Amino acid sequence: VITSGTLAVYLVTDEPSRYTGDFLDAVDDAVAGGVTVVQYRDTESDDRTQYTRARRLAGLLRGRGVPLIVNNSPALALAVGADGVHLGQSDLPADVVRRIVGPGCVIGLSITCAEEARAVDPACVDYVGIGPVYDATATKPDAASAMGLVVFAEIRRRLESFPAVAIGGMTLDRAPAVYASGADGLAMVSAFSRATDPAGVARAFRDVHARRGGEG
Amino acid sequence: VITSGTLAVYLVTDEPSRYTGDFLDAVDDAVAGGVTVVQYRDTESDDRTQYTRARRLAGLLRGRGVPLIVNNSPALALAVGADGVHLGQSDLPADVVRRIVGPGCVIGLSITCAEEARAVDPACVDYVGIGPVYDATATKPDAASAMGLVVFAEIRRRLESFPAVAIGGMTLDRAPAVYASGADGLAMVSAFSRATDPAGVARAFRDVHARRGGEG
Repeated sequence: VITSGTLAVYLVTDEPSRYTGDFLDAVDDAVAGGVTVVQYRDTESDDRTQYTRARRLAGLLRGRGVPLIVNNSPALALAVGADGVHLGQSDLPADVVRRIVGPGCVIGLSITCAEEARAVDPACVDYVGIGPVYDATATKPDAASAMGLVVFAEIRRRLESFPAVAIGGMTLDRAPAVYASGADGLAMVSAFSRATDPAGVARAFRDVHARRGGEG
Repeated sequence: VITSGTLAVYLVTDEPSRYTGDFLDAVDDAVAGGVTVVQYRDTESDDRTQYTRARRLAGLLRGRGVPLIVNNSPALALAVGADGVHLGQSDLPADVVRRIVGPGCVIGLSITCAEEARAVDPACVDYVGIGPVYDATATKPDAASAMGLVVFAEIRRRLESFPAVAIGGMTLDRAPAVYASGADGLAMVSAFSRATDPAGVARAFRDVHARRGGEG
């Protein structure tokens, strides 16, 4: 199972075409700096290519003791022995995925508005990703509009029994307020994929997390 | 398990946007006319929508005693209790999918050239789909170029231990030669989705199948 500490600094991989070097090196750097969990997200590649990439990532993270979550695909999660699968509202329903992946696999669910927070079943969902909190990121052109920190905090309270990560526009400047608003972790794509020093970015977020106040 | 007879008249659903009415009615008509197996293929819809559509299709086909194969997604196949999953060469590898879906689920594999016919593992693959035999269909703009009937027959012989369907440009005129070249069945998309009388089309192909000569 996933704990709130596991979610502290949550790296979501960017589309393969957005990495200038090997994405695995970029992820490895970030993990060395203190990333606590990695989600493999790739909407560009075919399933065979995703399988190859996710397997390499799983091997790397196993060696580092960092959990791997696979976006969207329960089959890919099972195929590479990932620790979990992250679902959006237009993916397979969480109760259906629970039957497929079994009780030992982490299931995360994206929540984009208060309405979606009403019917989250703790038997099926292990943690929630709430957002986008700030301006829709450049990495997800189809993302919902930003909810802002007030709505984030309100949704987070409604789902208080779940560990929760905030996503969307997470920066070092904003991080203290987001942790203080009840986020157990911050999920980030471009903060890592566009960084020249992913390890330094991870260290900086870990520092903010360690010094966090508020409900954390 | 799938038998050669099950594959005789194999309907592959067209993209949802290509049906003028309810796709379920069109499939139901074709099944009433004698379609022997249905593959749900939908590259347009998100996973949640595919789940809803596939569930409806599974319910319909269960009542008709016709097997349902799901294209590409082992998770969707498990989610709706489909009889099988059909894989392309850029989908998850068949041995990986076998571990996910278990021994009772049918796995079909697309073969587009002689090279791909070399390493088909009977422990993982239950039947093969060979093609495109004739001109690349309008329904799959990214399909490989047509192999022609001579190459089809050659590949089919290499895979003689597998039940095999031919796909790509299947018409009533061509059907006798294709069956005579070793096809156990003909897989068709637009022959059904564009028909004003899907039941009549299915009956006509069943008739050709019943009168087939050659290796069948």
